[in-house]
Amino acid sequence: MSDIWIMRIGHRPERDKRVTTHVALSSRALGAKGIYVDTEDPVLEENIRSVATRFGGDYSIQTGVTWQKATKDFKGKIVHLTMYGQRVDEALPKIPTDEDIMVIVGAEKVPAEVYQRADFNISVGNQPHSEIAALAIFLYLYTGGKHLYEDRDGEMTVIPNERGKTVVKKDD
Amino acid sequence: MSDIWIMRIGHRPERDKRVTTHVALSSRALGAKGIYVDTEDPVLEENIRSVATRFGGDYSIQTGVTWQKATKDFKGKIVHLTMYGQRVDEALPKIPTDEDIMVIVGAEKVPAEVYQRADFNISVGNQPHSEIAALAIFLYLYTGGKHLYEDRDGEMTVIPNERGKTVVKKDD
Repeated sequence: MSDIWIMRIGHRPERDKRVTTHVALSSRALGAKGIYVDTEDPVLEENIRSVATRFGGDYSIQTGVTWQKATKDFKGKIVHLTMYGQRVDEALPKIPTDEDIMVIVGAEKVPAEVYQRADFNISVGNQPHSEIAALAIFLYLYTGGKHLYEDRDGEMTVIPNERGKTVVKKDD
Repeated sequence: MSDIWIMRIGHRPERDKRVTTHVALSSRALGAKGIYVDTEDPVLEENIRSVATRFGGDYSIQTGVTWQKATKDFKGKIVHLTMYGQRVDEALPKIPTDEDIMVIVGAEKVPAEVYQRADFNISVGNQPHSEIAALAIFLYLYTGGKHLYEDRDGEMTVIPNERGKTVVKKDD
């Protein structure tokens, strides 16, 4: 299976801190390898790394990286999520699963160049909604959801429970 | 098919305005009938109604409604999404599709009573991530994504496009 990378564009540290945190954490939960964010944001980096340390795995974050730079030497397909794009159910079978993908997730306005640079402009519904929701559904469909309950060997592991909370902490 | 309602708890108007907006709009895109929000928030109501007016359909929003009140006379199953819950793939087949459902979406801390009141406590992955992402994947799986491209007879309709933007405006 290919590696999945996220490129978050249009990030404004004050206004977008929570939304970009959701983008990063949900992509991590769904198996992405890491995220690039176009605006420098050390607080965001620290928050995401703190979760990755406690809950395991090797998710990485780098801020202050433009989409031009992130995509320049990227070997693989570029997927841009937008409510204007082609239907996700029609696009999915065309995306190779033996190449890496980079998913571009925009905030408000996305430059026209991104639509041109992308190999696929894909909509998850043609209604205005949420880049977090669109990313989550896209990654779920692309991966089949296989990473959602994988063991990441973290300091803390949550065990599914029908009625309460079960958290296992590693002794070390 | 049953009707889907959302109950958003722990909403703080200033801090959560964007996240709760994402919860509302993504549930609308995925076919929910409407949302209850526990804290009064006229600005949020206006924003959501403005999208619903422009893009069609009959999504409703009511703020200042506690989860106790919303669930009291609700006929149907209550689904609470939490990273501590049972696996979504195991829970889904147990949720009836011929009854309405109300999906409770929490912010930071969720009172223990919610875990007790819910018919199903369901996780979408056992990693900390995003209530927006969890709700989106849950609703996608519950509905099969069938509402994502439905015609809602709005003032504006977006037509899927591989490379640009196609928006049709109604003449009236």
